[in-house]
Amino acid sequence: MKPSRDVYLIGAHNTPFIGKFHPDFIWKKHPDFETKKNPTLQEYLATAALGALEDANLKPADVQKGFVGNFVGELFSNQGHLGSVLASAHPDFYGKPFSRVEGACASGALALVNGIDAISAGYDVVLVAGAEVQTTVNAKIGADYLARASHYETQRELDPFTFPALFARRTKAYVDAFGIEEADIAKVVVNAYSNAAKNPLSHMGTVTMTLEKASEASDKNPTFLTNEELKPYIKISDCSQVSDGGSAVILVSAEGLAKAGKTPADAVRIVSYGHATGPIEGPSDLTQMDVTKLAGEEAYASAGVTPDQIQVAEVHDCFAIAQILAMEALGFASGPGKAKEELIDTDAFALDGKIPINTGGGLMAFGHPVGATGVKQAGEIFRQLLGRCGEYQVPGEPTIGLTQNMGGDDRTAVVTILKRG
Amino acid sequence: MKPSRDVYLIGAHNTPFIGKFHPDFIWKKHPDFETKKNPTLQEYLATAALGALEDANLKPADVQKGFVGNFVGELFSNQGHLGSVLASAHPDFYGKPFSRVEGACASGALALVNGIDAISAGYDVVLVAGAEVQTTVNAKIGADYLARASHYETQRELDPFTFPALFARRTKAYVDAFGIEEADIAKVVVNAYSNAAKNPLSHMGTVTMTLEKASEASDKNPTFLTNEELKPYIKISDCSQVSDGGSAVILVSAEGLAKAGKTPADAVRIVSYGHATGPIEGPSDLTQMDVTKLAGEEAYASAGVTPDQIQVAEVHDCFAIAQILAMEALGFASGPGKAKEELIDTDAFALDGKIPINTGGGLMAFGHPVGATGVKQAGEIFRQLLGRCGEYQVPGEPTIGLTQNMGGDDRTAVVTILKRG
Repeated sequence: MKPSRDVYLIGAHNTPFIGKFHPDFIWKKHPDFETKKNPTLQEYLATAALGALEDANLKPADVQKGFVGNFVGELFSNQGHLGSVLASAHPDFYGKPFSRVEGACASGALALVNGIDAISAGYDVVLVAGAEVQTTVNAKIGADYLARASHYETQRELDPFTFPALFARRTKAYVDAFGIEEADIAKVVVNAYSNAAKNPLSHMGTVTMTLEKASEASDKNPTFLTNEELKPYIKISDCSQVSDGGSAVILVSAEGLAKAGKTPADAVRIVSYGHATGPIEGPSDLTQMDVTKLAGEEAYASAGVTPDQIQVAEVHDCFAIAQILAMEALGFASGPGKAKEELIDTDAFALDGKIPINTGGGLMAFGHPVGATGVKQAGEIFRQLLGRCGEYQVPGEPTIGLTQNMGGDDRTAVVTILKRG
Repeated sequence: MKPSRDVYLIGAHNTPFIGKFHPDFIWKKHPDFETKKNPTLQEYLATAALGALEDANLKPADVQKGFVGNFVGELFSNQGHLGSVLASAHPDFYGKPFSRVEGACASGALALVNGIDAISAGYDVVLVAGAEVQTTVNAKIGADYLARASHYETQRELDPFTFPALFARRTKAYVDAFGIEEADIAKVVVNAYSNAAKNPLSHMGTVTMTLEKASEASDKNPTFLTNEELKPYIKISDCSQVSDGGSAVILVSAEGLAKAGKTPADAVRIVSYGHATGPIEGPSDLTQMDVTKLAGEEAYASAGVTPDQIQVAEVHDCFAIAQILAMEALGFASGPGKAKEELIDTDAFALDGKIPINTGGGLMAFGHPVGATGVKQAGEIFRQLLGRCGEYQVPGEPTIGLTQNMGGDDRTAVVTILKRG
């Protein structure tokens, strides 16, 4: 979809993404355990939304429409009705039309898509916020909550950790078809942690990940599935993080841009999006991401852009194999099974590579507060295209970027293409 | 908001709304208890969506965008990611851009709002489906799930039945301020059941409700709150139903209308909507629905219509008091506290009254499968304006109708105005 009016992204804010292993995450061994609490879902939404408005040089009263991306606040935080929760963030939000959008781990990008359509429909200032809190329960209960992104009735039983098992199944199929090694897959993991170390907001920025550690299971990096067939195909380092956090961006029309006292040079344009869904029961070919492919094709065609023109990308690396499959589905490699030769062996996704990917650390190391992720991705490309990424800034003043956010086992996919100015 | 392009509603489908007391609802005393199951959330979505397409004379392949309204599928059905669930309904839905929208009990109307914006944004054929299944758990657990529509952290403790308690609090405030009697409130209840008796799809169509029964607590119509202060202010008959069901409508642009082989005379136009949210912590004045009032004012102003021009309305009667407050907020009475004199005493909301309301039985007697309700309301006005309501058809060929759908304690409100042709 090409927006019917120009859509400018003019402000973004990201809270730190935190959870287990992050120094500020409060848990039983943290010195503040008895006296302080981690931020709530409501607080993350408010911080992200107000921060993004400030970054955009706009006020809460200027907002004409708002969308919240969140997957399962009803479960982790006992709280739904998140449009109204966002309305609590500032007195001037009273009466604003806010709502929540859900598509599992693609909830954030779906909120963004609704925001883009709202600009096309005639609104001039739209707030898009995403957040998730997941650290309120233990890992097994959390895995059960997140299994609501799969076809629960038939897929839940695969393993207590349903999603790691679904992507272990992808890994097995890919290894069987194309003969990739664990050390190859490990390279995308190491890239993520290496980038996160340069990103002060990242969940895993203080954790070191070596190629050696990421390449084979060990006491410090164990396999953990119960399903014996799939167990060898995934270990802790292959997984994204169970993070808490919030992210927001401000979208405006040309009129909204003027209202914020900005010019196109201060902004990034979202020139197209692709959005596709597939049946919840699962994909037909485990070695390809067909729904992401469809969304990418739509986004490229609407923008009149080809994959080789993309200079920086945010890709949905909920698991290491997901990044590899997404890179192929998005056309960064020439076809299925080509990622190793064309991208992994050359470190093409590194900050100084041919196509830098997940420059702030991706879902694996920046972190993955589910509903925030798709919004964060847009904010990251915005910052990269405006040269605001500090230590992890991509060199060469990139002008075209891409985001890919995915729900479930490639059952929802959103791809956006952004251009500077 | 006035859509930037004409938005036509050209097809609708409603499954029966069922649950306790409905003859087809399968539970332990039903003859098919061991052999058959009630439909699932996924089945309701599919039935509603495909039925609406058939009613619109369109095929699944024609759909360009889809929205699902649902509140807490993650809890009642262990299933989120409902855009992908809808994509399973037909092979030709593969790849379509579907997503889920949530705003508590206003989820259905929010899906509709997104659908209207999508037409304004340039899509020509949009599917809007809503569904909820709530009968998978007992009433107390269900009440806890639904409490996610309130500010759970501070309001859950009000009563095991949080929402009935929140609206008992509204009733108490209204009674204290304006001196209305239980027998007055009972009249809106009796109207709902009387209308539902004429509606073959209604949940409570076979249940008789007399003014005598609805006017005071009894063994057959008990009060049920634990909160002693609020307990006298609500009894079973004042509540809407815990229903399962699905509803869908098809929205098209002028191009989509032509594609379906229809003319404006076969359709109803959604000429405007109002959408507002207030802070989740609750309203400041319990005797008024300030958020509904804002949404109504926006809808009226955008449409250039006044309340006295509305000839048929669907109003969110989640509780009897909610209908009374909504009628006042929407300007059907001249101000707060005026409903008794101006509407109730004259039976103005009856099928042959001045402003027929909830002609199919409303949430109290047609039923309230939460995410379906806002979609059903639009479908009902569509059918009334085209003279398709059979035994409960409003006389005099109405040409202008209104819907009001509400989330939580008037924390989200959506009002739409529809015109024939």
